[in-house]
Amino acid sequence: MSKSSTVTVRERPVENVATATAAGLTIHGETFVVQTDQRIELVDLTARVMDFVRRFNVREGFVSLWSMHTTCAVFINEFQVALLSDIKRFLEQMVARDAEWLHNHPDHSDCDRMNADSHLRALLLGHNLTLQISGGEVVLGQWQRVLMAELDGPRARSLRIQIFGIS
Amino acid sequence: MSKSSTVTVRERPVENVATATAAGLTIHGETFVVQTDQRIELVDLTARVMDFVRRFNVREGFVSLWSMHTTCAVFINEFQVALLSDIKRFLEQMVARDAEWLHNHPDHSDCDRMNADSHLRALLLGHNLTLQISGGEVVLGQWQRVLMAELDGPRARSLRIQIFGIS
Amino acid sequence: MSKSSTVTVRERPVENVATATAAGLTIHGETFVVQTDQRIELVDLTARVMDFVRRFNVREGFVSLWSMHTTCAVFINEFQVALLSDIKRFLEQMVARDAEWLHNHPDHSDCDRMNADSHLRALLLGHNLTLQISGGEVVLGQWQRVLMAELDGPRARSLRIQIFGIS
Repeated sequence: MSKSSTVTVRERPVENVATATAAGLTIHGETFVVQTDQRIELVDLTARVMDFVRRFNVREGFVSLWSMHTTCAVFINEFQVALLSDIKRFLEQMVARDAEWLHNHPDHSDCDRMNADSHLRALLLGHNLTLQISGGEVVLGQWQRVLMAELDGPRARSLRIQIFGIS
Repeated sequence: MSKSSTVTVRERPVENVATATAAGLTIHGETFVVQTDQRIELVDLTARVMDFVRRFNVREGFVSLWSMHTTCAVFINEFQVALLSDIKRFLEQMVARDAEWLHNHPDHSDCDRMNADSHLRALLLGHNLTLQISGGEVVLGQWQRVLMAELDGPRARSLRIQIFGIS
Repeated sequence: MSKSSTVTVRERPVENVATATAAGLTIHGETFVVQTDQRIELVDLTARVMDFVRRFNVREGFVSLWSMHTTCAVFINEFQVALLSDIKRFLEQMVARDAEWLHNHPDHSDCDRMNADSHLRALLLGHNLTLQISGGEVVLGQWQRVLMAELDGPRARSLRIQIFGIS
């Protein structure tokens, strides 16, 4: 059995910026990069998402945020130093880094990052969010923040954000 | 380090009802409130989502359901008294309420709800669903129900539902 | 209290194929079936999703993948034999199949599949993905694969895929 992972290949790479319009409807997507500093790190992307949406004349619609990596997740929660520490501890408790995962074993895997725990933690959080836009702004509750979970850093992480809506 | 959580502020609050149309495309969003009675409670929102979609002349499209709270989740599962009891027990097992979470400690957190467990349980379930609409109705399997998980009640919970599609 | 689960009934069943267009915007949905061979099995649907999107003249937009079952999930991760084995082991560790779940007990449940574990595992992974389309293709990172998790097989599983975008 192969020790390698399947590679996803598009015919052409994703453009950094892409736009389409049709009769009052706008779609616009962009790629951006977040540099992380720690192996596990939670980054608040809320201001970036809100600013992105405000750049477009979209009154009602959706905005999608997509992590381009298997070991980097996006999710909603509260942004408080204490709670972020709890979330990291919880992820570490749920998935033991040093369990005997096959993905970390050279007999079974050609991945040298020893990051099975990162893959399993990402699976709990998910890789995308589709947020509503109303009145020209993202719909979020008072304590809701759009968070990125770096689970195998430090790395430069690419995320793609796409807006879809009516002006 | 701050004991407080970041507050999300829009320039204007979300309107309770908002609509936009363009050349055959309709977008319509509304906020609704669900009153819960227990600390952990699972509420079936399926009929409400189906009725919402049937009000619009949208044949093909999407409907997004968004919880406006960090400690209130939405997810898909079967609605059976026995299984709901299992789901609550599972959430309680996965995240111990009385572990020494920093979010519950006054030295680290100005939150007096002692609800770190609620935040961590919500993280497992997620805060939004984007459902397909086809033939004028929501696409759901025979046993699939749209469920809301109150994780820190009793509370009045706001959810936002937005339809997007072609008539 | 009822031992039965609520059934979701549409006025009309979902059509296997449905299309709507308006002023440059296309929506097209289809149902497809995946036959599984094991109780827990991870299936790579990436090529199927990519091929589906390439059939349409949609340059920018979204594609939604929806599992029609409560015990069959869809999620993003890397496709490597070793890691898939780790994911299955992780799901089995997180939710014990033989715990005394009420859903498996004839006094409380009329379900004879004894599959409480399947329901709880699906809850961790989720039932849908909303992927971005850009440049006529799905937006995915190099190692990201669209995976289906059969959690109570072997079964024939129905999934619905819907594209939404501008040509």
